[in-house]
Amino acid sequence: MSDRDGYPLTEDDLLPLSLGAAVLGTGGGGNPHIGMLRVRELMRKGATTRIIPLDALPDDALVSEVGGIGAPLVGIEKFEQGEECLRAMRALEDFTGERFAAMISAEIGGANSMEPIITGLQAGLPVLDGDGMGRAFPEVQMTTYFIYGGKPSPAAIADEKGNTLVFRDVIDMYWLERFARDAAVAMGGAAGLATAPMRADFVRRVAVPDTVTQALTIGRTILDARKRRRNVVDRVIAATGATLCFTGKITDVRRELKGGFVRGEARIDGLGDWAGSEARIAIQNENLVLWVDGRPVVMVPDLIMNLELDTGEPITTEVLRYGQRVAVIAMPAHALMKTPEAMAVVGPQCFGYPELTFAPLAHAPVTA
Amino acid sequence: MSDRDGYPLTEDDLLPLSLGAAVLGTGGGGNPHIGMLRVRELMRKGATTRIIPLDALPDDALVSEVGGIGAPLVGIEKFEQGEECLRAMRALEDFTGERFAAMISAEIGGANSMEPIITGLQAGLPVLDGDGMGRAFPEVQMTTYFIYGGKPSPAAIADEKGNTLVFRDVIDMYWLERFARDAAVAMGGAAGLATAPMRADFVRRVAVPDTVTQALTIGRTILDARKRRRNVVDRVIAATGATLCFTGKITDVRRELKGGFVRGEARIDGLGDWAGSEARIAIQNENLVLWVDGRPVVMVPDLIMNLELDTGEPITTEVLRYGQRVAVIAMPAHALMKTPEAMAVVGPQCFGYPELTFAPLAHAPVTA
Repeated sequence: MSDRDGYPLTEDDLLPLSLGAAVLGTGGGGNPHIGMLRVRELMRKGATTRIIPLDALPDDALVSEVGGIGAPLVGIEKFEQGEECLRAMRALEDFTGERFAAMISAEIGGANSMEPIITGLQAGLPVLDGDGMGRAFPEVQMTTYFIYGGKPSPAAIADEKGNTLVFRDVIDMYWLERFARDAAVAMGGAAGLATAPMRADFVRRVAVPDTVTQALTIGRTILDARKRRRNVVDRVIAATGATLCFTGKITDVRRELKGGFVRGEARIDGLGDWAGSEARIAIQNENLVLWVDGRPVVMVPDLIMNLELDTGEPITTEVLRYGQRVAVIAMPAHALMKTPEAMAVVGPQCFGYPELTFAPLAHAPVTA
Repeated sequence: MSDRDGYPLTEDDLLPLSLGAAVLGTGGGGNPHIGMLRVRELMRKGATTRIIPLDALPDDALVSEVGGIGAPLVGIEKFEQGEECLRAMRALEDFTGERFAAMISAEIGGANSMEPIITGLQAGLPVLDGDGMGRAFPEVQMTTYFIYGGKPSPAAIADEKGNTLVFRDVIDMYWLERFARDAAVAMGGAAGLATAPMRADFVRRVAVPDTVTQALTIGRTILDARKRRRNVVDRVIAATGATLCFTGKITDVRRELKGGFVRGEARIDGLGDWAGSEARIAIQNENLVLWVDGRPVVMVPDLIMNLELDTGEPITTEVLRYGQRVAVIAMPAHALMKTPEAMAVVGPQCFGYPELTFAPLAHAPVTA
């Protein structure tokens, strides 16, 4: 089989994929665990899918981006019925009269790593190895698809009760975010969203490549290090080229659910090399900005991740709590997320930090 | 021409229609004046429409119910672009692949008396002589169409900016209200809603009949009385069989905009026959309940209307103010609005008055 055939996703892949997606979730994106259980259930019933590279499809094949939309705090408590994204995707097929050839993720970070796989298993479609963020972000328009001209409509949203809405004409991606968010909140806080059909040649050009494989690699690294009783944080840094930015103990976490988003801040007292220093992380579902002793050190769109110091377990913002000992690591965002076009959508300004000028994290060599 | 051909709507009809619709708005439904100006503009450009009776169409002809959705306080300040309802209706035609044969109003009271006429003029379609309320009510599901089994989907909503959403599958009429209201608020507080296509035989059975003509009659009565310097309130009562329930001076008005609705209460000190008494009117966009000296006298779905004592001008809840001298008149709702099925949707319980048992206003003989 050629590279273009990709590889089948197996049950053994699910735990590493889930772990890697949680790391790339940069604290948000929702917990991929429930989605993983649904993927496993579908696989055990005989459903199969393949992870295929971005160049696997003919130019005019149609790609469907699906994902859950809501707030992480809701996502945990609200089990989805399991066919929300499939129904949203089918609504678009009915509306356009065209069929999709493959699925792709909006965000590899968190729960939306699993949603296109679930839909792929249900619909018998492969999943492209890539996504629209290379991480997680809180809003619909914050993908490379929309940043580089993807159409805001038609899109569709479905809930577990049987409601399906088609966003037939939407004037821009910010209106799509607003309509979809409002509908998701009305639907009970979580729903399945399918964005406008994209041609494969467009996706090949704008998607962040190879991120399903990257998540698998991160997850396998963590599991392997645990099995061999190696230091997990060190191994993840070695495997990914991440930068260790801070280690310490959480001293304060503020969190509030506001307009469908979790906003807040965590404070960390330094340990080890950082003894005597204090770090602060701003949260809006995801980790947005890391300050050390008042100085901004890493900021969106670069990736800021909290791993539990001893186990390397990724800590999502919703389970951050007083007393946790964490390693704060960072990874540079993909180049597609750092262009001027991208800065206008996912730069620090877009999250309410007009005083910050994006200073990119340097690419550290991957030494693993 | 047979009765089934109905009658053409002329420019001379617009002022009386607008006045009568404001009276039947029972204080709410939005001001029909702006819509009237748009109707006139379309007519002056040569557009025509007819008002046709409910039995004018073949059984399987499709009827489109369109209307503005939002809050009255917004409606006054936000001029619609003028094709919102037309675009919502066309979205349903595209979605179903079927064409509409006529328009009908959701509510004859207030601004939504004009919307189907505007769409009818734009699309070259007649308007049925009837509506779904015989008055105004604040929520989408509060029509005889939905009370008697009309489908909640597909429906469509459009704004003046170019956004159009199709509510493709909606599980019940309360979800439609929720999705449509949320979308209208997102769209800036007002939008055009087209509800699911209805067959003409269904509409003939469930619509409140002859209400366009009734609004015209009320409006002509007011204008005629003014011209002849007769007492307008007396003439309206004589022409409609309404009951005079209270006369007095407004002493207090509380109003707040909450979740897209205007809620509040007005207090009135008695004058004339009611000197020494106090009346209270509960408002949720429309006048809901009239108490006199603490006793509930008239309540939804029956119609409660404030007319200015001297001029007979209908006073909408948004312009109620201290010092106004008013006659509070009431009319019984149509029988279709008082069945057990209707009570479950538009009875006092549905507006937050569990302590009230609906006591229908007696039909007074029309003496004019």
